[in-house]
Amino acid sequence: MDRRITTIAFDADDTLWQNETFYRLTQERFAALLARHVEKDRLHERLLAAERRNLGRYGFGIKGFMLSMIETAIEVTEERVPAGVIGEIIAAGQEMLAHPIELLDHAREAVEALAADYRVLLVTKGDLLDQERKLAQSGLGDMFHAVEIVSDKNARVYDRIFRRHGDGPERALMVGNSLKSDVLPPIEAGGFGVHVPHGLTWALEHADPPDGHPRFFTLPDLSGLPALVERLNENLP
Amino acid sequence: MDRRITTIAFDADDTLWQNETFYRLTQERFAALLARHVEKDRLHERLLAAERRNLGRYGFGIKGFMLSMIETAIEVTEERVPAGVIGEIIAAGQEMLAHPIELLDHAREAVEALAADYRVLLVTKGDLLDQERKLAQSGLGDMFHAVEIVSDKNARVYDRIFRRHGDGPERALMVGNSLKSDVLPPIEAGGFGVHVPHGLTWALEHADPPDGHPRFFTLPDLSGLPALVERLNENLP
Repeated sequence: MDRRITTIAFDADDTLWQNETFYRLTQERFAALLARHVEKDRLHERLLAAERRNLGRYGFGIKGFMLSMIETAIEVTEERVPAGVIGEIIAAGQEMLAHPIELLDHAREAVEALAADYRVLLVTKGDLLDQERKLAQSGLGDMFHAVEIVSDKNARVYDRIFRRHGDGPERALMVGNSLKSDVLPPIEAGGFGVHVPHGLTWALEHADPPDGHPRFFTLPDLSGLPALVERLNENLP
Repeated sequence: MDRRITTIAFDADDTLWQNETFYRLTQERFAALLARHVEKDRLHERLLAAERRNLGRYGFGIKGFMLSMIETAIEVTEERVPAGVIGEIIAAGQEMLAHPIELLDHAREAVEALAADYRVLLVTKGDLLDQERKLAQSGLGDMFHAVEIVSDKNARVYDRIFRRHGDGPERALMVGNSLKSDVLPPIEAGGFGVHVPHGLTWALEHADPPDGHPRFFTLPDLSGLPALVERLNENLP
């Protein structure tokens, strides 16, 4: 039976384009707005706690981040935050939603090279409309065989996606910057996971690497991905 | 060539389960919170303007509604709204996100009856996670051949969905409560559109019925849908 990889799935945020850096910049602005009320580290701790608490109701994405910032501003000021500051938080979030995307180095070349020989997918979480906007802006949309915007990235979700758009998880490879979302669950589903670290990773995405796992790989950036896939396929029956 | 209908797509909110009624209740609560600052009709007018203005950045769903309420509260009070009131608005939105769904009359029976003979789809917009939660709660999930949560419902989107999961728009029928989102665009795509009015419809979903169009139908509730589809198919080659 042919076991070669036929399907390559890419994460989007911080794999193909910058994302976390805009969250960090907004958090800096958030801290400056509340500097009179609370010390920066303490504020970020409270914000992270709110994001964790709200993840199950808001899911991933900028709108939930905005709501968690507002909730945190009310909480840390014991309801004394002026409405004008809340207005500034909303404006900061709306700027994130309008920010032009910045493709990461080698992203276009890697997708292009692989799209010639493989079924190339995009698998991302976050707000539906915002992810669609970023994909449209990226100019990469036409290269993807399918785009899946999902509310969570777990082994069951990858299994479903790789069956629907590919030849099952065993013949699929996922690449992304988050070990927790892009690497561990596709490996658990039976596929390959390639980690391309990004300098900045959201605290809620941290996980330990599955060092020594035969289907786990790390690359410093996307430029080496086509060669890695080719090498893997040379060694598969 | 066989032209009989093979694919039946359902809208979710206010077609299978209650939705707008919870928005209206929250708007009442919103008006009560701001009663000291602004008269109710004027507030609803400002809120609708904010929702319209923000639709392109937030898309559909409760999170965007929460953010538009907060923005409106700041605007109508000229930045004097107390933080405690903003906290109440967030709490009201979170209650909407946690509210158990209420199936509409005949919804289960109609989906069940049609799922036996047709490919049955769910096509809905709104926040990804919230729609998934409602579908899971509805107990109807297993009856759908596919579920599409989309950021917008236009003719192009319906065309893509009916090609992907069915035999193209010409052999598909969409049913829902919104003429603008559930009826006009599938008809424009070449399919059938069935309007099942709900007592409450969001102002931004209003549209005129395509009276006299040969592929447009109206039903008072979902109980008549299986018979309508059967009748249509008897008259198609």
